Amino acid sequence: MVKRFYVDQYVDRILAQDRVVLSRAITLVESKLPSDQELAQQVINRLLPYSGKSIRVGITGSPGVGKSTFIEVLGNYIIQKFKKKLAVLAIDPSSQRSGGSILGDKTRMEVLATQPNAYIRPSPAGASLGGVARYTRESIILCEAAGFEVIFIETVGVGQSETAVHSLTDFFLLLMLAGAGDELQGLKKGIMEMTDALVITKADGSNKEKAQAAQQEYQNALHLFPAAASGWLVPVMLSSALEQTGVAEVWEQIQQYETQTRQTGYWEQKRNNQQLYWLHQTIRQTLEERFFANPAVAQLLPEKEQAVLAGKLSAFTAATDLLNLGYK
Amino acid sequence: MVKRFYVDQYVDRILAQDRVVLSRAITLVESKLPSDQELAQQVINRLLPYSGKSIRVGITGSPGVGKSTFIEVLGNYIIQKFKKKLAVLAIDPSSQRSGGSILGDKTRMEVLATQPNAYIRPSPAGASLGGVARYTRESIILCEAAGFEVIFIETVGVGQSETAVHSLTDFFLLLMLAGAGDELQGLKKGIMEMTDALVITKADGSNKEKAQAAQQEYQNALHLFPAAASGWLVPVMLSSALEQTGVAEVWEQIQQYETQTRQTGYWEQKRNNQQLYWLHQTIRQTLEERFFANPAVAQLLPEKEQAVLAGKLSAFTAATDLLNLGYK
Repeated sequence: MVKRFYVDQYVDRILAQDRVVLSRAITLVESKLPSDQELAQQVINRLLPYSGKSIRVGITGSPGVGKSTFIEVLGNYIIQKFKKKLAVLAIDPSSQRSGGSILGDKTRMEVLATQPNAYIRPSPAGASLGGVARYTRESIILCEAAGFEVIFIETVGVGQSETAVHSLTDFFLLLMLAGAGDELQGLKKGIMEMTDALVITKADGSNKEKAQAAQQEYQNALHLFPAAASGWLVPVMLSSALEQTGVAEVWEQIQQYETQTRQTGYWEQKRNNQQLYWLHQTIRQTLEERFFANPAVAQLLPEKEQAVLAGKLSAFTAATDLLNLGYK
Repeated sequence: MVKRFYVDQYVDRILAQDRVVLSRAITLVESKLPSDQELAQQVINRLLPYSGKSIRVGITGSPGVGKSTFIEVLGNYIIQKFKKKLAVLAIDPSSQRSGGSILGDKTRMEVLATQPNAYIRPSPAGASLGGVARYTRESIILCEAAGFEVIFIETVGVGQSETAVHSLTDFFLLLMLAGAGDELQGLKKGIMEMTDALVITKADGSNKEKAQAAQQEYQNALHLFPAAASGWLVPVMLSSALEQTGVAEVWEQIQQYETQTRQTGYWEQKRNNQQLYWLHQTIRQTLEERFFANPAVAQLLPEKEQAVLAGKLSAFTAATDLLNLGYK
């Protein structure tokens, strides 16, 4: 009975846009306790019918590119000009967060953090990528039920998390610095081909000319690469947080993308594919976790891996040997 | 006893570079019969110590780019000039092969097909991607044990197979036509970032100028994208099968890649990663296949998928419901 009461309370308060209860629900989603998990799933399933109405934007870029500042400026623009409610979530599975490069330090978004229409939430430290992806997916649902209309999902752009974020968002934004080459060092290969818009940051003062040249170069280059299934042509934009320029254009592009892909049906289709992807991905991960948690498998795995690497056993035979153990 | 004799026979004859027995062994690898599979695995495991010494080159490109012709010319060059033994394998899981775009029509490599040092083998029709990937991986082992020093793996460049091929090969070659845009239509997004060398084909006659311009454009563009973990800089080359130009340069680049990455240790590391990838991938696939083959799961899956798509059930809850069935 108590539990049921709690579920109702979470649901009612979140639908009433209570941010304190929203935060508690997200904490529940992130909890590793089975009882919390069960409660969280009940809340999620009750709130699902109220979710899905936001635009979900992935924002990534190397450390130093000015992600927090860009999010601060774009976020404030959307809130003030369009009276939108904005939530900012972070994905950072590596997360010792020593450099404070991702949301850990909320004060880096000083103005945004004080806005009543903004909600900022860092990812839990020390979680696995699979875990963080689920937390984020379910936090999106909770935030949407709490009335947030735009959701930013921030990542660091260097690890495995971008594929996950790509599967969580409607639109993927890559921030870059002008100055050919250097800023690419940290970026993961493949990230460019997930990108729906490229924004060159710090396009101001003596840096402006270089930024414009980079814009031209990237515009030319992107034409040489295979087009997206959406039919969307990736724009390359300039932005300066200092001079507060470019954010209107970025928001305009995001909205154009929504309009265009809703018309073609791609928007809906992508969301559906993402839902089914996460259903299957959860099954895949759980099957693997259970398999490798089997003590007999865990014990034999290193030996079989060594045999494969030494050319003594084919990958197929080694897999078969392990699978025979895992099904006892 | 009979079986053991057969294993020995396969092993001995393949090591003696008997192409007829090699072909029979590959047919065994491709067989769906459990008894054939078991025999195949015994042969594979016996031959593993003699494998791994070839250079494995993935070659892809849209239909019409001239893949077969390019392979014919490059293959003959390697065989005649360097006295190498070359095997050509095809991956084509979609494979109705109605267009004859991939090896189905051996006669498209007329000269190569008659060379005693060349061995050409199309992939079996109607196999799944997972199946074809395994056949190809194991066919590579057999071909290497039979003394083939260079292995080309041809794909069509439009489907899911490129990721698999990328995990099977040392070097990945993308063939393209000059004439901005059009030839990209069929290509899978993401393929560019797997590529170790880009070759613009049909760079002859009135097409030559256009090909040179495209070469310049791609060279500029590739500098703007994140570099490979190998440290290798992707070259853009021109080739004409008609004028028999460019093949020496392509082969030279492949050899430079081998020399360079062997020095840095990347070559060995990549091969090891591929081995472990296939071990884990085989386990993953088998776990999934078994799970979804469970009649209770198969029956409930469509209903759960619909509930997730209709926003009635979270992906996590749906997955949990199905997982509970799958473990009875």
